[in-house]
Amino acid sequence: MIGYAFMGKAHSNAWRNVASYFDVPAFEQRVLVGRDPAGVAAGAERYGWAESSTDWRQVITREDIQIVDICAPGFMHAEIAIAALAAGKHVLVEKPLANTLAEAEAMAAAARTARTEGVQSMIGFNYRRVPALALARELIAEGRLGTVRHVRAAYLQDWLVDPESPMTWRLNKETAGSGALGDIASHAIDQVLFLLGDQVTEVSGRLHTFTTYRPGRNGPEEVTVDDAAWATLTLASGAIASVEVSRVATGQKNSLRLEIYGDKGSILFDLEALNELGFLDATVPVREQGFRRILVNEPEHPYAAAWWPQGHVIGWEHTFTHEVRDFLLAIASGTQPSPSFEDGLTVQRVLAAVEESAASKSSIIQLTTPPETSPRPEGA
Amino acid sequence: MIGYAFMGKAHSNAWRNVASYFDVPAFEQRVLVGRDPAGVAAGAERYGWAESSTDWRQVITREDIQIVDICAPGFMHAEIAIAALAAGKHVLVEKPLANTLAEAEAMAAAARTARTEGVQSMIGFNYRRVPALALARELIAEGRLGTVRHVRAAYLQDWLVDPESPMTWRLNKETAGSGALGDIASHAIDQVLFLLGDQVTEVSGRLHTFTTYRPGRNGPEEVTVDDAAWATLTLASGAIASVEVSRVATGQKNSLRLEIYGDKGSILFDLEALNELGFLDATVPVREQGFRRILVNEPEHPYAAAWWPQGHVIGWEHTFTHEVRDFLLAIASGTQPSPSFEDGLTVQRVLAAVEESAASKSSIIQLTTPPETSPRPEGA
Amino acid sequence: MIGYAFMGKAHSNAWRNVASYFDVPAFEQRVLVGRDPAGVAAGAERYGWAESSTDWRQVITREDIQIVDICAPGFMHAEIAIAALAAGKHVLVEKPLANTLAEAEAMAAAARTARTEGVQSMIGFNYRRVPALALARELIAEGRLGTVRHVRAAYLQDWLVDPESPMTWRLNKETAGSGALGDIASHAIDQVLFLLGDQVTEVSGRLHTFTTYRPGRNGPEEVTVDDAAWATLTLASGAIASVEVSRVATGQKNSLRLEIYGDKGSILFDLEALNELGFLDATVPVREQGFRRILVNEPEHPYAAAWWPQGHVIGWEHTFTHEVRDFLLAIASGTQPSPSFEDGLTVQRVLAAVEESAASKSSIIQLTTPPETSPRPEGA
Amino acid sequence: MIGYAFMGKAHSNAWRNVASYFDVPAFEQRVLVGRDPAGVAAGAERYGWAESSTDWRQVITREDIQIVDICAPGFMHAEIAIAALAAGKHVLVEKPLANTLAEAEAMAAAARTARTEGVQSMIGFNYRRVPALALARELIAEGRLGTVRHVRAAYLQDWLVDPESPMTWRLNKETAGSGALGDIASHAIDQVLFLLGDQVTEVSGRLHTFTTYRPGRNGPEEVTVDDAAWATLTLASGAIASVEVSRVATGQKNSLRLEIYGDKGSILFDLEALNELGFLDATVPVREQGFRRILVNEPEHPYAAAWWPQGHVIGWEHTFTHEVRDFLLAIASGTQPSPSFEDGLTVQRVLAAVEESAASKSSIIQLTTPPETSPRPEGA
Repeated sequence: MIGYAFMGKAHSNAWRNVASYFDVPAFEQRVLVGRDPAGVAAGAERYGWAESSTDWRQVITREDIQIVDICAPGFMHAEIAIAALAAGKHVLVEKPLANTLAEAEAMAAAARTARTEGVQSMIGFNYRRVPALALARELIAEGRLGTVRHVRAAYLQDWLVDPESPMTWRLNKETAGSGALGDIASHAIDQVLFLLGDQVTEVSGRLHTFTTYRPGRNGPEEVTVDDAAWATLTLASGAIASVEVSRVATGQKNSLRLEIYGDKGSILFDLEALNELGFLDATVPVREQGFRRILVNEPEHPYAAAWWPQGHVIGWEHTFTHEVRDFLLAIASGTQPSPSFEDGLTVQRVLAAVEESAASKSSIIQLTTPPETSPRPEGA
Repeated sequence: MIGYAFMGKAHSNAWRNVASYFDVPAFEQRVLVGRDPAGVAAGAERYGWAESSTDWRQVITREDIQIVDICAPGFMHAEIAIAALAAGKHVLVEKPLANTLAEAEAMAAAARTARTEGVQSMIGFNYRRVPALALARELIAEGRLGTVRHVRAAYLQDWLVDPESPMTWRLNKETAGSGALGDIASHAIDQVLFLLGDQVTEVSGRLHTFTTYRPGRNGPEEVTVDDAAWATLTLASGAIASVEVSRVATGQKNSLRLEIYGDKGSILFDLEALNELGFLDATVPVREQGFRRILVNEPEHPYAAAWWPQGHVIGWEHTFTHEVRDFLLAIASGTQPSPSFEDGLTVQRVLAAVEESAASKSSIIQLTTPPETSPRPEGA
Repeated sequence: MIGYAFMGKAHSNAWRNVASYFDVPAFEQRVLVGRDPAGVAAGAERYGWAESSTDWRQVITREDIQIVDICAPGFMHAEIAIAALAAGKHVLVEKPLANTLAEAEAMAAAARTARTEGVQSMIGFNYRRVPALALARELIAEGRLGTVRHVRAAYLQDWLVDPESPMTWRLNKETAGSGALGDIASHAIDQVLFLLGDQVTEVSGRLHTFTTYRPGRNGPEEVTVDDAAWATLTLASGAIASVEVSRVATGQKNSLRLEIYGDKGSILFDLEALNELGFLDATVPVREQGFRRILVNEPEHPYAAAWWPQGHVIGWEHTFTHEVRDFLLAIASGTQPSPSFEDGLTVQRVLAAVEESAASKSSIIQLTTPPETSPRPEGA
Repeated sequence: MIGYAFMGKAHSNAWRNVASYFDVPAFEQRVLVGRDPAGVAAGAERYGWAESSTDWRQVITREDIQIVDICAPGFMHAEIAIAALAAGKHVLVEKPLANTLAEAEAMAAAARTARTEGVQSMIGFNYRRVPALALARELIAEGRLGTVRHVRAAYLQDWLVDPESPMTWRLNKETAGSGALGDIASHAIDQVLFLLGDQVTEVSGRLHTFTTYRPGRNGPEEVTVDDAAWATLTLASGAIASVEVSRVATGQKNSLRLEIYGDKGSILFDLEALNELGFLDATVPVREQGFRRILVNEPEHPYAAAWWPQGHVIGWEHTFTHEVRDFLLAIASGTQPSPSFEDGLTVQRVLAAVEESAASKSSIIQLTTPPETSPRPEGA
């Protein structure tokens, strides 16, 4: 694994625990890679890795390494992932796939090539592994919502409310690529595509930075990424999805909300209460219709049988545990893990279209998916 | 109508509006009765009554009066109601039926006698007319909950939180009969009996006064009624209901909550959100079970077709509008309105048993319903 | 009053009850006007009007009439309102002000002229009178939210979910002007302006019709209005508001939702639970921050002292009772009722800009408010 | 560790992860003990234990063992715990302390003796380590609720709803001691004592078994424990707490609910949403009072800084991670971990009083705490 900050800590938790809950192929947590020798050694000790290293190039060619998990910053994704795939290692990479569309395309191409050799790759849209959202996808795939029309996706946080909160690399376009757009709209958009199994055909978008200068080391520095983003997406099915994300929604801590309205039913979700799914079945008599709060902890629910008895809720971090489980099982069975790098690229293309639309005063941008990047239909 | 304080204002609203929403027999708001000539005259003007009077005895014998609505304090209920029934007037009386069991029994006897002459009577347990609770009763009667076992009823308010809140007649046993017990536990107990169509066979109860002295006109005065009450009720069906009421539940304003658990489903309700009913259908697959929030404003719902389009919620006061509607229709059809004085007496007996149990250290009290007071089965 | 359908029923309720709760100048419900003689006569009887008439022109010139309340369809608003103002009658008109911008401008001009003669006028954005929203406005005006940045407004209904639901005049652009946009986005936009006391400077919008043909009398007929609309609004203060409305949001019955995020606090609201306001105070220590559910029924709350004790919730219809109360008090004091026809025109201009933007592929439209239409600052 | 069923799995998770999040003394997961050699070996492999054994007596005397974690069934607690303490090992034992009061007393005596030798012991009331409840305790200890009066505790589950659900050892008094009472009322009662720092002086209780026979291997077998229990507890402070627990509350999965009402504020909690705390501060102006939903994931909150950024919720299992952390830190500092065996005994005494009261028709039982068992005041 490369990287041991927030995401490295979360991925380590997944690797450390997955085999205690799920039947997965045997593996070992071999090497943690980072830049600072002392820091990475301490991280390896703390998070359960046998060794540490500061040289990812050396590590990814070791014969005793079969899997590379990339939790390094986005601008490093392409180089490491392409090299690791070329070295014949299966690769899991944190989202977003890359900071630029060009890098993302190169990564998707490398993944396609590697796949033909049996080398697998996966992009870490971990919220696909929230049991409640996996259940939502099942219900939608079974037709329980009928024809989906109106979709509302939002991801609201508030960690940038304070205008005196200092400048960081995350607020600089050169290092971060974009702001709320790439960081959290990417999750919202991936969910829309995942849940509906649909494609985006048109995009209108808007970006805004509420606080344009923030305190830097030597005085005010310009914030060059968005604090908030808005978009409407036309989907191939005819549905329309709105997407709205913010880092200044005071009091909303980590609220990825999804509302999906079909002609036979609807789905509601909020990541702050991730063990719950709202579901309305519009085919029962009107007299008894209402949104149900399903506590998604029953043995019948996705991933849930591995955990605790009903009503004993699980935490955010196990979205990664499930991700790693599915990644390992796909590798073992020689199938493409989902979501693929191509799925990651698809989301990047939508994000790029939002930026293009915003730059041209919200005008609608047509999006055509190149045929070669269409991901294969996903398994259940 | 006799009385024009809180309940008089609410009942007036019902009389003033019922014919604008429901097809009821024609009637007029003829006389408002009260003690203070100027006050009652102003009240009549304000609330839509043609005249006012200070002499209820004279008014209840007037030939142009057919209905007497008693909103006077509880200690006056028996005398007025019995006299009005004897004068051949249909009587609606606010709950509780009376301050003492003896008075309640006399009223029930008077009602039985009057009924044989076609003179009807009704006790104002208005929450039976909350559309959501009427729907709950329908669902239970249809067997949607299966065998009901565990029932939880609570009525929580907080208007006595401040220990410096002054002494009033409501806190004196002589004038008020009891505290939270008669005032709000009566509603909770009536709901249990109404929703389940059941009878209480055993009672264990407890009463407590948290603030025993309060500021009076001439120094501290003793509070002689309960601030809170607890009871468990064994029902004839074998179900057990807990009842808990409080006037010191800080932050709970008017929270009558009901939870009814059967082997096929469950019901949740909170009066602070009275347009909503929680319903869980345990016969659907476990994977999609969950409490539904039914917004009880559809034309299919009890009373709702008369009001506004779906989702346009109604207020607390229309529990009385519905009560008056049902009272008028029962009179017109010559049938016994529900709940009857006997239903009111049944609740009084349970309240008396709670007091008896509390006085004997919570010991379980057997309750036998005298056969003559069994109310006739209620219509739909 | 002219019109006795849904809105006529709701306004009648307000006129019938306002004086029982509020101290307003004495008035009588004199004449109900409609097209069908028998229908309007029955309506007058049912809703408490002394007489009925089929000739609005004659009625608005009667000397015993001082107020005209227009609940007729939108295309009739301009003609009636202008004539009534010219006849020296105070005018209350249901929203939207008119079906076209030209008519709305003519009405605003007539209102300005009449005002100089002491003749008042008001547009019926009744949700300004929801106590919870009036409280929200107070809190915002007091600075409790600090600088407002991110605003989310949505109005979700579901009465057009069924594609077999028949064609009506409301789905035809000629008779209805627009669809969800004029009907419910107007409310959402007015709330944004009301709560923030702000102006719209830029608009990007989108309209969509999910079901383009519906069963008519003689086969399928084309639906020529929108089922759903999306917009982002830039406000003069720098805040950005998203607006999203739908008639196909299955399971959402009447859900006008508002989320207002400032740097010192936030507000949440949902019309389906209109007695409640969500409020987060970001100036208290983080450890104890959280959205409060304020039950807006305390004597301290706007309009609430007139009603019932705390926790006894009121219904949707009393937004009109409060509207009529404020209208009567403004007339009595010779001041301009709020919202004015100019406020209605302001909303119409935003709606027109949404349509213009949608027609030009969501491009951002600049909105400049002509100086003469700036409404005077509103009173408390 | 002894035992590897549900609780063994949960405790293993805690031991496996605690050092990745918290600074605790170094330790190793040395031996897992169970009865079935193959099963316990597989469990050790799965849950991260270096070895396995079937002989607890031998293991607890090993020199390389310093801590014994007892997850075996309740009837084995006393024997193992007393032996382990005698062998000088620190002991963590799952709740309930024991199946009988006599065993619990012997364990508390053994703990007192061992403590004088620096050997520590702890009873696993893990819900004291829910961050939201730890925050609640802080707020109460700081006086934010003022004088607490009315407390409501309930623990509702539904896994026994089906009358055809088979007989198990948990439903037999000889093996299980009691039913819902010992299993879940123990948690509710411990929370009341923990949160308030109070003592029980009087108890009235009731027990009920709704399904008295269940399918056994050879036909129906009698259920000899309670399905549900009710109690009211008088506390030394004068507060009164109701406790209600059920295994037949259809649709309630794991709902430990707490409501604590003081004269300056109130607390609400539900274990099904364990990252949230409801708090009402009654000292702010009434106009803005309301229950806040605090998402207890801020660095300022108990235990939370170790985990993820704000709004990234944790799961039920980390109540044990926190428990193990506090146990290790107490051992390292030579202080008594909390809750002590005496705390466990205190809860057992209340449970016994509920049974005694139930056996004598709910009569109130006086509870006197022997002076020698008063636990020392707990640290922050």
